[in-house]
Amino acid sequence: MGLPFTHLTSTKQLSRSDTDAILGVAKDMEGILKKGGSDLLKGKILASLFYEPSTRTRLSFESAMQRLGGDVITADGIQFSSLYKGESIEDTIIVAGQYADIIVMRHPETGSADRAAAVSPVPFINAGDGPGQHPTQALLDLYTIQKECKKIDGLKVAMVGDLRYGRTVHSLSFLLGLYKNIELTFISPKELTMPEKVTSFCKEKGITFTEASNLEAAISADVLYMTRIQEERFTDHSEYERLKSVYTLRSAHLKGKKTVIMHPLPRVTEIATDVDALPNAAYFRQVRNGVPVRMALLVMLLGKA
Amino acid sequence: MGLPFTHLTSTKQLSRSDTDAILGVAKDMEGILKKGGSDLLKGKILASLFYEPSTRTRLSFESAMQRLGGDVITADGIQFSSLYKGESIEDTIIVAGQYADIIVMRHPETGSADRAAAVSPVPFINAGDGPGQHPTQALLDLYTIQKECKKIDGLKVAMVGDLRYGRTVHSLSFLLGLYKNIELTFISPKELTMPEKVTSFCKEKGITFTEASNLEAAISADVLYMTRIQEERFTDHSEYERLKSVYTLRSAHLKGKKTVIMHPLPRVTEIATDVDALPNAAYFRQVRNGVPVRMALLVMLLGKA
Amino acid sequence: MGLPFTHLTSTKQLSRSDTDAILGVAKDMEGILKKGGSDLLKGKILASLFYEPSTRTRLSFESAMQRLGGDVITADGIQFSSLYKGESIEDTIIVAGQYADIIVMRHPETGSADRAAAVSPVPFINAGDGPGQHPTQALLDLYTIQKECKKIDGLKVAMVGDLRYGRTVHSLSFLLGLYKNIELTFISPKELTMPEKVTSFCKEKGITFTEASNLEAAISADVLYMTRIQEERFTDHSEYERLKSVYTLRSAHLKGKKTVIMHPLPRVTEIATDVDALPNAAYFRQVRNGVPVRMALLVMLLGKA
Repeated sequence: MGLPFTHLTSTKQLSRSDTDAILGVAKDMEGILKKGGSDLLKGKILASLFYEPSTRTRLSFESAMQRLGGDVITADGIQFSSLYKGESIEDTIIVAGQYADIIVMRHPETGSADRAAAVSPVPFINAGDGPGQHPTQALLDLYTIQKECKKIDGLKVAMVGDLRYGRTVHSLSFLLGLYKNIELTFISPKELTMPEKVTSFCKEKGITFTEASNLEAAISADVLYMTRIQEERFTDHSEYERLKSVYTLRSAHLKGKKTVIMHPLPRVTEIATDVDALPNAAYFRQVRNGVPVRMALLVMLLGKA
Repeated sequence: MGLPFTHLTSTKQLSRSDTDAILGVAKDMEGILKKGGSDLLKGKILASLFYEPSTRTRLSFESAMQRLGGDVITADGIQFSSLYKGESIEDTIIVAGQYADIIVMRHPETGSADRAAAVSPVPFINAGDGPGQHPTQALLDLYTIQKECKKIDGLKVAMVGDLRYGRTVHSLSFLLGLYKNIELTFISPKELTMPEKVTSFCKEKGITFTEASNLEAAISADVLYMTRIQEERFTDHSEYERLKSVYTLRSAHLKGKKTVIMHPLPRVTEIATDVDALPNAAYFRQVRNGVPVRMALLVMLLGKA
Repeated sequence: MGLPFTHLTSTKQLSRSDTDAILGVAKDMEGILKKGGSDLLKGKILASLFYEPSTRTRLSFESAMQRLGGDVITADGIQFSSLYKGESIEDTIIVAGQYADIIVMRHPETGSADRAAAVSPVPFINAGDGPGQHPTQALLDLYTIQKECKKIDGLKVAMVGDLRYGRTVHSLSFLLGLYKNIELTFISPKELTMPEKVTSFCKEKGITFTEASNLEAAISADVLYMTRIQEERFTDHSEYERLKSVYTLRSAHLKGKKTVIMHPLPRVTEIATDVDALPNAAYFRQVRNGVPVRMALLVMLLGKA
């Protein structure tokens, strides 16, 4: 199975058949992981270029590459390096493409991924460009929903927390737009409601959505996607303190519920640790799912699927 | 050969049969090294998490893993990364355990290793938690003594330098407590004598020990374990300058002696470079021994010994 | 094919038969790259020690090692690490040689590479020691000239830009001194002319050279080697601004010319991006050539050629 593109920079380039193909190959990759890995990408090198640190995403990609027998060259925090000093992103990517067979890049500027993909001599994957896109996170979220719920069409998904600035809930909403009969519930303080670009997308796609401010409205969804509320978004500190506790999910909330709890991590106080032991708590499985999803993208973009 | 534990956080969890088993497997690992490595851990991934830099220890573990055909994902200086930002050690370890088959962690806080081991979904090795434990250093010291002296029971071991704050001499003393008829000599300036926790341990175990302040008292031991005296321990700078030269071991000290000279490195002035060429100088062999000892721990904790 | 030395610290240790051998093996390595790599160095470990960042050089060496099936342990920015704290370069290298089979080092101090090589227990390659030597860059430059021009003897090579401080143009001049009938043209502002050590070398070797200040004098050479003019070299900022545009190579300069354009990268403004699409633009191929040249050195110094 291939993909109709060479570079993955945005969820917006994905069709339903693309996500079906990626999730299908990711499932195959789980089979490979259970067997202890493979040599499918032996001899291939991934260049892992992180202009800003994102240890979780970097280690996930590097693990995925190594599980397939491939190798990794890493530049982390390269804003300090001579590679970057005065050199354009374009030149850096062309250079990295002389050393590696595929490139993953994290960069703080929106649009940097598209600039990189435009010149990359080898397949390129965006691992986050500032507040812009982070498509592999959205795909692993989607894969987790499918694994936990055995389907995606027809699900009720509640998103909670900082919906205004949260890159992951925007990308996931766009991807869910590829599926049928999705119902979304957006739960946030009024300062942090879902932006118009997402709500208008929902209207356009005919996705039912409701907005609320109380956490309880989310509990009966099939999936509850928690995000962190960041202190720096508030001018009134006491308001932040109040909301922080309002938006803390506890095991008591989930009594008798099968709601699947997800979170892009890191979590601070928004999910109490007493939730961790519940079968509903899917957020560490979600992290784990990043590996087969990224393995799928690596093999597909390298034409080895 | 297995070990009766999944995680190694402290020398205190080791019995004599554990150290015998580890040193035995380490010897097998030297055989593997001589044959150019093996594929015993092919398909396995080590997560090397260094919250504070310790390049020597990190490279030693990473070399050990690669000599066995395994792969490594590294986060170095991750105090600056988003992985760490506000996230508990527990969550970080659970996440790393989704990407890797075994975790090695260095962390500046005492007790962090126990917290990590308590939740780690995969085998965990403490590579130093602040002034606390650094069990693999103590094991490679023990292995070096056995290799150099062909035995451990009955040896006279002198420890020299900063015995108060030196983590390595404490851990080594505790491990030597597992052996018979050990005689220890503790040589330090009065500001830096061996702490009560070690001397009372010796009394309890019936280990003969003497305390002295002159380097010459150490020369006739079977093993002389040098450590660095750190300037910042002294309020009186001239006193430091005086002691620095008093505790500098020179080849002249060792004329006609077979005393095995060890040091955890890095050394500054406490061993003159004219000692390096003597057959007694074991400190670079000691560094080398870190690789088979860590290989042994990796294969044993992964159930491949 | 072997080399008559164990460590490569300087271009000055290379004879014509050495460069012939290295370029020959580099060509074989390109064959290996086309076949997807090899396992020639399986089981071998490269220690990649970068005391100052040089991401390009580091990634090139690490890619080279992995293309040959070898592994890499990396210490980047180790000026901050305990490995370096107060420890001599000599001790650091002896330690690294206990973990690895070959060492590559970048260090900010001239002469550090010779100090390292003097004690290294394993083959050692200098990846740049301050303003001193960077022999693998000079070798990849030479390899690129040979590939692009099908020969080296008899060529006209123009060097442009900062000839005074540019390490690469000095090293390349020295290497070209091993070849016959070379004609050099040195083009720079008067502040940045080629230093006497290079011009006197040319006289001694009977290499014809001319000096000029206008870029046009370079256009008809077989090879035009551009370098960056650094702002900090000028006391008069307006003079820098004037020269910056004088020394910008544009596609218009190259109309109807077959001059091979090289650059050690990173480039800033000295080559306009409209040159990139010309067949003459060899600078990204030059980057790529770093991999087979470094593969050649790794296999030769490890006795596997």
